[in-house]
Amino acid sequence: MLNLIASKERAMSYATQMLDTYPRTFNLDAGLLAATIDALTDCAQACTADADDDLSEQNVAELVKCIRLCLDCADICATTAGVISRQTEYDANVTRPLLDACAAACKSCGDECERHAMMHGHCRVCAEACRRCELACRELMDAMK
Amino acid sequence: MLNLIASKERAMSYATQMLDTYPRTFNLDAGLLAATIDALTDCAQACTADADDDLSEQNVAELVKCIRLCLDCADICATTAGVISRQTEYDANVTRPLLDACAAACKSCGDECERHAMMHGHCRVCAEACRRCELACRELMDAMK
Amino acid sequence: MLNLIASKERAMSYATQMLDTYPRTFNLDAGLLAATIDALTDCAQACTADADDDLSEQNVAELVKCIRLCLDCADICATTAGVISRQTEYDANVTRPLLDACAAACKSCGDECERHAMMHGHCRVCAEACRRCELACRELMDAMK
Amino acid sequence: MLNLIASKERAMSYATQMLDTYPRTFNLDAGLLAATIDALTDCAQACTADADDDLSEQNVAELVKCIRLCLDCADICATTAGVISRQTEYDANVTRPLLDACAAACKSCGDECERHAMMHGHCRVCAEACRRCELACRELMDAMK
Repeated sequence: MLNLIASKERAMSYATQMLDTYPRTFNLDAGLLAATIDALTDCAQACTADADDDLSEQNVAELVKCIRLCLDCADICATTAGVISRQTEYDANVTRPLLDACAAACKSCGDECERHAMMHGHCRVCAEACRRCELACRELMDAMK
Repeated sequence: MLNLIASKERAMSYATQMLDTYPRTFNLDAGLLAATIDALTDCAQACTADADDDLSEQNVAELVKCIRLCLDCADICATTAGVISRQTEYDANVTRPLLDACAAACKSCGDECERHAMMHGHCRVCAEACRRCELACRELMDAMK
Repeated sequence: MLNLIASKERAMSYATQMLDTYPRTFNLDAGLLAATIDALTDCAQACTADADDDLSEQNVAELVKCIRLCLDCADICATTAGVISRQTEYDANVTRPLLDACAAACKSCGDECERHAMMHGHCRVCAEACRRCELACRELMDAMK
Repeated sequence: MLNLIASKERAMSYATQMLDTYPRTFNLDAGLLAATIDALTDCAQACTADADDDLSEQNVAELVKCIRLCLDCADICATTAGVISRQTEYDANVTRPLLDACAAACKSCGDECERHAMMHGHCRVCAEACRRCELACRELMDAMK
């Protein structure tokens, strides 16, 4: 029987495993694509949790902007992960502006989280996830040119 | 007791009612904003249903591109509806590129649905929802300038 | 050219139009199904907006539970709307417990919103959307028996 | 500068890091909670990709049920991950039936994916993700008693 708790580390991500078993060829580098999907799902998770962590803080009134941007960023990252996970009938006209919007959301959210990083450890972790994700979106956009 | 089935018509949308009770003022015209939110949720619903309708068709293999674009468009419209519904600490740097990405998704999906509109009534309805939503996104972007 | 703002009323919902053009027959009453989908998307919209409205209130610290339950309810309603919109290869083993979970989320969220309904108009509207949606989920579950 | 591609392995998951920095105490075991969140986001990713992989297969018409259940399972897992990630004002009345619905979705989807596992590697990987996620949901429900 699987012991989910015992294994602290996550092995190869499912993004990677699913791309490895994709039935057709694709133009983009699979490693880059999988890394971007992982960065997006990581960022969505961090932002969802950070919005909630903020709600548990004493100074919640000062964290309203952070909560709002985290909610936006979580939704946009999750949607972008879905879109770039779909390789069938890939449409650059949809993917490119969406990656652009996602990088912008990560930038805004990362900037705001960073402002609270000294006071709240969860904002520091979330800021890091946003920076990584913004970078990943930009690298994928570069590779699409 | 409410009778949900009896009333065929939907009264004033919840997007409108919620904007009417928003505690602060906002810069954008509330009517335009509510109309855009409604167009986005309508389009998300139409695309979700159309992807599924396509899966029930005999010629599903010819509808693969339509399914894929409907899944993208549904996710992007739902996310965009969420982001523009949030008025607290509004951030144009996030909203603008997202509306741009959403209009692009509606364009691609509407074009593909239109190709199947003669053969499949559900693709005709979905194409119409996509066109309305693309227009709504562009009108809101114009109003944001 | 469409004038989105001019027409205040929403005509027949897209849920209805898409069910009307579905290529196969389905066991459930289409009117009931469309009404439930509409109640779910309405509730998702109301909850998304109410969480944000709460964030704009002076007494945000007292609305933390309301925000949290609205975020849950919005996500669960949107997911449930998607699942029941899919008619292809319908699986009651998935739909039934999901409708049950959705009715529970609407109950919890509606109860909490009602506590703030006197003070905040947006919580009153959201409570109403939650009550309608809970009822719709229960009616559909009854019809599935 | 970060090199996203170089590091093949994902370090500690963001679910874990965010729970480690949560400002309050929570009743559930943090390791179990983080493992469940990871299983849910992994399963959502696998199901999103598998639905798309199916669309790229020659025998797509035989995979319609698999696609449909993958779409349901992806949505339900993503929503459940969000709900259990929120620790503020935790409500067992919402969480319990949702975990139950999620386990049911993973069961249905895992069964169907397994039917195609010999023919399609992506269905085999997705079936595994569904089994792990179903187990994780049930373990968390047990811990909640």
